[in-house]
Amino acid sequence: MYQKILNEIFDEINGLDCQGKQADYIPELAKVSPGKFAVYLTELNGKGYGVGDIDDKFSLQSITKVFAFTLAYRLLDDNIFHHVGVEPSGDPFNSLIQLEQEHGMPRNPLINAGALAVCDVLIDELDNPEKDLFDFIRKIAQNDTVTYNQKVYQSEKTTGHRNRALIHLMKSFGRIKNDTEKVLDLYFKLSSVEMTVKELSRTFLLYANHGKLPGTGEQILSKSQTKRLNAIMQTCGFYDEAGEFTFRVGLPGKSGVGGGIAALHPGEYAVAVWSPLLNPKGNSVKGLKALELLTTKTGWSIF
Amino acid sequence: MYQKILNEIFDEINGLDCQGKQADYIPELAKVSPGKFAVYLTELNGKGYGVGDIDDKFSLQSITKVFAFTLAYRLLDDNIFHHVGVEPSGDPFNSLIQLEQEHGMPRNPLINAGALAVCDVLIDELDNPEKDLFDFIRKIAQNDTVTYNQKVYQSEKTTGHRNRALIHLMKSFGRIKNDTEKVLDLYFKLSSVEMTVKELSRTFLLYANHGKLPGTGEQILSKSQTKRLNAIMQTCGFYDEAGEFTFRVGLPGKSGVGGGIAALHPGEYAVAVWSPLLNPKGNSVKGLKALELLTTKTGWSIF
Amino acid sequence: MYQKILNEIFDEINGLDCQGKQADYIPELAKVSPGKFAVYLTELNGKGYGVGDIDDKFSLQSITKVFAFTLAYRLLDDNIFHHVGVEPSGDPFNSLIQLEQEHGMPRNPLINAGALAVCDVLIDELDNPEKDLFDFIRKIAQNDTVTYNQKVYQSEKTTGHRNRALIHLMKSFGRIKNDTEKVLDLYFKLSSVEMTVKELSRTFLLYANHGKLPGTGEQILSKSQTKRLNAIMQTCGFYDEAGEFTFRVGLPGKSGVGGGIAALHPGEYAVAVWSPLLNPKGNSVKGLKALELLTTKTGWSIF
Amino acid sequence: MYQKILNEIFDEINGLDCQGKQADYIPELAKVSPGKFAVYLTELNGKGYGVGDIDDKFSLQSITKVFAFTLAYRLLDDNIFHHVGVEPSGDPFNSLIQLEQEHGMPRNPLINAGALAVCDVLIDELDNPEKDLFDFIRKIAQNDTVTYNQKVYQSEKTTGHRNRALIHLMKSFGRIKNDTEKVLDLYFKLSSVEMTVKELSRTFLLYANHGKLPGTGEQILSKSQTKRLNAIMQTCGFYDEAGEFTFRVGLPGKSGVGGGIAALHPGEYAVAVWSPLLNPKGNSVKGLKALELLTTKTGWSIF
Repeated sequence: MYQKILNEIFDEINGLDCQGKQADYIPELAKVSPGKFAVYLTELNGKGYGVGDIDDKFSLQSITKVFAFTLAYRLLDDNIFHHVGVEPSGDPFNSLIQLEQEHGMPRNPLINAGALAVCDVLIDELDNPEKDLFDFIRKIAQNDTVTYNQKVYQSEKTTGHRNRALIHLMKSFGRIKNDTEKVLDLYFKLSSVEMTVKELSRTFLLYANHGKLPGTGEQILSKSQTKRLNAIMQTCGFYDEAGEFTFRVGLPGKSGVGGGIAALHPGEYAVAVWSPLLNPKGNSVKGLKALELLTTKTGWSIF
Repeated sequence: MYQKILNEIFDEINGLDCQGKQADYIPELAKVSPGKFAVYLTELNGKGYGVGDIDDKFSLQSITKVFAFTLAYRLLDDNIFHHVGVEPSGDPFNSLIQLEQEHGMPRNPLINAGALAVCDVLIDELDNPEKDLFDFIRKIAQNDTVTYNQKVYQSEKTTGHRNRALIHLMKSFGRIKNDTEKVLDLYFKLSSVEMTVKELSRTFLLYANHGKLPGTGEQILSKSQTKRLNAIMQTCGFYDEAGEFTFRVGLPGKSGVGGGIAALHPGEYAVAVWSPLLNPKGNSVKGLKALELLTTKTGWSIF
Repeated sequence: MYQKILNEIFDEINGLDCQGKQADYIPELAKVSPGKFAVYLTELNGKGYGVGDIDDKFSLQSITKVFAFTLAYRLLDDNIFHHVGVEPSGDPFNSLIQLEQEHGMPRNPLINAGALAVCDVLIDELDNPEKDLFDFIRKIAQNDTVTYNQKVYQSEKTTGHRNRALIHLMKSFGRIKNDTEKVLDLYFKLSSVEMTVKELSRTFLLYANHGKLPGTGEQILSKSQTKRLNAIMQTCGFYDEAGEFTFRVGLPGKSGVGGGIAALHPGEYAVAVWSPLLNPKGNSVKGLKALELLTTKTGWSIF
Repeated sequence: MYQKILNEIFDEINGLDCQGKQADYIPELAKVSPGKFAVYLTELNGKGYGVGDIDDKFSLQSITKVFAFTLAYRLLDDNIFHHVGVEPSGDPFNSLIQLEQEHGMPRNPLINAGALAVCDVLIDELDNPEKDLFDFIRKIAQNDTVTYNQKVYQSEKTTGHRNRALIHLMKSFGRIKNDTEKVLDLYFKLSSVEMTVKELSRTFLLYANHGKLPGTGEQILSKSQTKRLNAIMQTCGFYDEAGEFTFRVGLPGKSGVGGGIAALHPGEYAVAVWSPLLNPKGNSVKGLKALELLTTKTGWSIF
């Protein structure tokens, strides 16, 4: 059934004349071919269905904030919420305004400030922060080859002034323990991770499977932690368009300015879409449309 | 099973020494006995389970915003979204700041500004706005006796300066067609509706039942509209604590400063809780705790 | 000397092709001929110099906020500062944002919210608020014929939704004692006062003369109060363009959306200009230019 | 006359039990003895009058923003206003909120963001930025020994996270050309300049003397530039308390968190005060009081 639905979605969307714009503040991202489009859905039992450029790697960008938070949540449990909140921001993804008004406490772990705070925590908690974080991502991806793109990483490192502003503002409120460039370095590597939609949908199966790795059965997060992380994705996963996404799609998920979106139906499947053209809020235009069609055509959302 | 769980919840919560504060900006609400506590859950098949003061009527306040929006959504379908958005506000429930920055367009129908815009639409669309709106509420409640409390209504009408500020600001942006006092009058009557938790949970069954009235099978909202309204409740139903509620409870719902909360599990049940003491964000302290225990003890949330 | 300078200013400015826009949110103001231009300067000794349409009456609008504040300051002395502050707003003249963040306390008496608070105080303090206020304005203008324009007043009363939003917001913070429509009525009449530039410059002589009425020698405000009111005009008299005005002109003054500006050089003169086309901040384009030329050509400002 | 007035001011103020707090975010500043108090007034003819600790050097902090801007204004004339505005900020001195909303353009040269932009300009314009800037300060101070305090400089460099946030935010908007740490280094050295009140009042004579160095007669700024800089000091020199200062004192000036204030009466005198205890807005409590008494007792302000 899923393959048929994905085929229909591809037919309806692929040819659309799309009004979006590629991310250009990270020069490397602006070089990706704008016509790329891929959808991949993986069921809990491991069966997968795909259409489009499913074997192209793309830059996950903010989607990886979910992975870093997963590891931090696993390590600190509820203590992680001394470092980040759980409320939607209602403001653009890199806004300093709210962060200043709220004394440097990030609203949630899925905005830039929140992910920087999470990286700071990981540096504190891990023996080899970079190696340990990437090993963790490879483990939940069940894929030893996952890594970050050197050019994207360098590009972000050179141009990441807004993220530097965020972390220095948090540091001025005493909320960052480690050297700011060290934290930023981990953050930029994390943001530069690449996967295909196939790999990404497999990695998100964990969250559809109540915290258990589908293959090995290992419990990465508890059932309750997973429920809560899914709730955070639902309310905070799409910058200041979380309401729109919840309204149109009705699944928890996370988007990135590389044009990817990963989402999941608890107990059913994980799905990843990719198309580089973004709407003004920073979410993939075709990706949003594809997921909306998916829940419309299946007749299922969590609501 | 549900009765047993509700009994446990009652035992754990009822005796708690609770830090909340009653709403006092509406003088009538401050007179309610602070120790009141009730929970009522109704399954789709109509079977109900309750504990505590389940036969006491209380002031629904903002919970009724869901009913007014249901009627407007039914009448205008997607055109209602020319009048209100679907994004969480990230600001306190009666903030003018966001409304000014966004040129008088309310973020969503479940904040005060949004409900005022919805009332303005209803006055335009209905022959006898007050009668038709209350008839509609009685219909979805399947209860001919539902009405508003005269004293609460008068109390709100006399003291509602903040709501007057909101509606005049919207009017200055050309977003209110009708006379402001006429719109406010309907809004204050709507806010003053009273129900018991039993009646309230029965009224919310509609949203758990994909838009169909459980008794008669009448389709009040389409399946897709219901999904979308549930999504709006999930991201916008709890003032600037929607993230926290989604995180801890994981069900769509709506709270009111009378101390009530209504929530639902699509395809399963609707539940109403009531306890007048509020946390600083305006949500019932014991009500939140009760719903958190409910999804923890049943092991089910939508995530 | 002054007449020669005014003639030069007129020659340089009158023919300019001017980019401004007339105020249109008050329909009556939009009907004024956009080419009108007048400057009138009165020395402390009463000698006057003028160019242009010096016998045309125009709507003083916000300039009259100075008169209402003068009376309230005279009546309450420093206690008036329990009702309004003395800081520039840094925001557009009718912004609700700052007012909400600062709990309904207006930043200063020369923005709309501040003048509304002053009108509320005057209603409390005066036996016949409207008569007494207009008698006071006539007294300091030394002109028994000063009154307000009925059409402008009606126009403001009908369309003043933003001012209604402001006063209801202040009332919700407990900062307005009297009935809101009663306060607004006085405020709209005050705003609708008309004068010629000749009359206006004579009325402002008081502030150049250390608080003494030039003709009679009556002390309306003390020397210290006058100094302080001049200081408030300097920092707050030009909406969010007070810095620009201070920078370019260097005199205390007050502008109105009718296109008028009154300013003064303490111990020297008062000057009034009028030209209806406004810049985006709501100040008269030619008026600003004329005053800049005046202090450039005389070589005198207070700095 | 001035000596007598200063003596009276000293008697009235020195013994006051003062509620202020020393700046503690720069650890070196917290070490200064809180009881220090000094006032020094210099007439245009060079005659000086002082009371209190007039030979103690103290950290000028933000007062030096005036010197850096003077040099940049001299070098670029009105082109400097492509880099900084002339409006008061209405927000605390280091707020990022306004800077973000206004796309990284600082409101004026006397707030932190503005001075950072000025330092960036100076680095572009000068052959040896640090040497040239300090030579310029020594020249207008007519004092070859002026320099910065190494410990204060190191202290600021280590703890200046908020300033780093500001400059990275401006850089993200493309408003900073040079390496951020290079700009910050100049900025921190500038902020760490020390003078006595005697030296400081002599340095400010320039601004009371229409831009001419009192000793040599050299024109540092034109008469018109000086008038404009004085106007900027009047509206922007006291963080978000510029209105209060203008209201109570009525002279242009600039304060610093080291507890110093410099002010001037055009054509008359320059005055410097110092006392380390600050009010919540960051201005010296006794310093403000002393200047208020000065203009009250002399009966002169610019208004």
